[in-house]
Amino acid sequence: MKHIEGGICTVRGVKAGGIKQGKNGLAIMVAHAPHPASAGVFTRNRVIAAPLIITRQALKKNEIKAIIANSGCANAFTGERGIHDAQWMAGILAEKLGCRPEEIGVASTGVIGRYLDKAVIAGQLDEVYSRLSNTEEAGRACARAIMTTDTTMKEVAVELDNGVRIAGIAKGSGMIEPNMGTMLAFLYTDAKIPKKTLDICLRRAVDKSFNMVVVDGDTSTNDMALLTATGYRDCGEEEFQEGLDSVCISLARMIAKDGEGATRLIEARVKGALTENDARLAAKAIVRSPLVKTAIYGKDPNWGRVVAAAGYSGAEVDQDKISLKFSNDKEDVTLVDSGRIVEGKLEALKGIMAGGEIVIEVDIGLGDYQATAWGCDLTYDYVKINAMYTT
Amino acid sequence: MKHIEGGICTVRGVKAGGIKQGKNGLAIMVAHAPHPASAGVFTRNRVIAAPLIITRQALKKNEIKAIIANSGCANAFTGERGIHDAQWMAGILAEKLGCRPEEIGVASTGVIGRYLDKAVIAGQLDEVYSRLSNTEEAGRACARAIMTTDTTMKEVAVELDNGVRIAGIAKGSGMIEPNMGTMLAFLYTDAKIPKKTLDICLRRAVDKSFNMVVVDGDTSTNDMALLTATGYRDCGEEEFQEGLDSVCISLARMIAKDGEGATRLIEARVKGALTENDARLAAKAIVRSPLVKTAIYGKDPNWGRVVAAAGYSGAEVDQDKISLKFSNDKEDVTLVDSGRIVEGKLEALKGIMAGGEIVIEVDIGLGDYQATAWGCDLTYDYVKINAMYTT
Repeated sequence: MKHIEGGICTVRGVKAGGIKQGKNGLAIMVAHAPHPASAGVFTRNRVIAAPLIITRQALKKNEIKAIIANSGCANAFTGERGIHDAQWMAGILAEKLGCRPEEIGVASTGVIGRYLDKAVIAGQLDEVYSRLSNTEEAGRACARAIMTTDTTMKEVAVELDNGVRIAGIAKGSGMIEPNMGTMLAFLYTDAKIPKKTLDICLRRAVDKSFNMVVVDGDTSTNDMALLTATGYRDCGEEEFQEGLDSVCISLARMIAKDGEGATRLIEARVKGALTENDARLAAKAIVRSPLVKTAIYGKDPNWGRVVAAAGYSGAEVDQDKISLKFSNDKEDVTLVDSGRIVEGKLEALKGIMAGGEIVIEVDIGLGDYQATAWGCDLTYDYVKINAMYTT
Repeated sequence: MKHIEGGICTVRGVKAGGIKQGKNGLAIMVAHAPHPASAGVFTRNRVIAAPLIITRQALKKNEIKAIIANSGCANAFTGERGIHDAQWMAGILAEKLGCRPEEIGVASTGVIGRYLDKAVIAGQLDEVYSRLSNTEEAGRACARAIMTTDTTMKEVAVELDNGVRIAGIAKGSGMIEPNMGTMLAFLYTDAKIPKKTLDICLRRAVDKSFNMVVVDGDTSTNDMALLTATGYRDCGEEEFQEGLDSVCISLARMIAKDGEGATRLIEARVKGALTENDARLAAKAIVRSPLVKTAIYGKDPNWGRVVAAAGYSGAEVDQDKISLKFSNDKEDVTLVDSGRIVEGKLEALKGIMAGGEIVIEVDIGLGDYQATAWGCDLTYDYVKINAMYTT
């Protein structure tokens, strides 16, 4: 497997396009597929946005041929009118493509509790549709169109040893919480994979990637990850899973790194847990903790907050068995060895905290399970961005 | 029941004192009691500070005669040496009082993963002990000595209709999370209450007050609430509970209002929940949400974040039945009525958000249970305080 340049348009059969005008963006993705299959994962928030309701229904009935996604308005908490608006979005693209509205996936991201501006979307649709293509540039325009507070476009593509390609784009910067479907991610592959297998592979990959990202602990109403297979090439399940995991983890790291206001990526690796769930709980608690996040922003060597977070995470923990290490690309520093504080390390720790990517390794020392979670620091800019989001 | 001026020294039999030198503070409280009884509630963090371990043991064995509490160092995650240091603290006060070390409660608050500076504490002890008294001023010095990032001293006292007094002091500003014992709170009463009843009353009061406060969602390693009854006056359980609830809720509100960097108090009142637990989950999710907290800081009328938080809280929620209202002392504004958006209210909402205390009322519309939680806004100063805590 190797990483290749470009995004979703590197996958055979995929055309894309997008436009961004101020806060309003529109993205379209179309898959021409000899053997189409599609799968989706959705937010676990009980307040679910209208586009998710209709996309979930569509996936149950048939395969998704194309996706229409807008940014600027989440079309969430908008009742019956919201459902009609989402169906209208599916309808206008279906009409252009000459297919049924049930074959269109719809996604939205932006402010909750506002109605869609249909005139804006209708205007953008004509423009985007006329420029749909399978070029790298079109893929990028599509990835850009779904951004909100994101500062970087998020796309990734891999080619497996058997030639199969898997690629995806994602958006997400705030309202990012672990325990769920997750933000917007659109994944494509030219592999020929049965729908049921595709669904299982997607759930496995999301669990290891997007579900392990925390920016602020707020679960969105609009999170969804959609995976479309066009079916041009045969592929073994194991190989496919490995490639899909890699794509999803790359996108997940990009989301954490581009967390609202973030200046640093935090990777929490927990090992030695009694169960996998314990390892996940502890890793996510560390990257979710506002105190760990602010300490890293300030390069404050206040490592006690990491063990406190592991302690309240719900994971089984014995404070006399915990070991703790901070590291970056160049060096590492051991702060706790089986419950004992290793003194005289605070200056070295400050140095590691100054880097762009900080790895926190916690060995719980009780069992054999491990998990990795990604997050970012909590900065003045997170407050700024979110104190003035709709104004 | 009426609120009275002063703190714990308004309770008959209680003497107190305290000193604060830079980041290091020491507080002492002594209760002379004809019928002593004491109860405690402790953090649910699996990483538990040394002073809590020995205080919990002491409470099991006998009644607590006096409390020694230091600020600046949490004596948490300090292993065997931490336990010895906490026992040493109990020992030096016991020697002065001529009692057994097991009759002393020990509390600490400050940086985790550092050892106590025994020389500083020993020096402060002599000074504080020589000035112990039952004056209002001494009570205040005691309340001030336990502060860390707190900007206001937190003390409250009530007198019941039967003359019984209940008073308490507390500290807590960051690392404040709902689901546990909670921060440091020292409560005194001259009521004569059996130990078992005292324990039950304390748990009930803490559940309604400290356990419903969120500043940042980080559960401390050092949280504890201790209640000491001196027993000078008879008192019915129901009347006592009412007074204790009032004292604890007052202190809890003070903690929320003085959350690190906070400029506003947020009160989330949830009603219409299917179970009491659902009401608590939803109320706490709202005051915990970084997005709700930053919106209130910025007076951004982004109320959709409140319903999103209720949606992911774990409570049973039907988005078509939710109603939402914001209010302050002067006015209120209804934003959602049984799932329907009430349009044209955003300017009025901005006005309410500008006040010092904001009440968010969510009616889930499914059942009869209710709960109230307290929190504060998330500001630049929260980031500042916590980015440079140990440096």
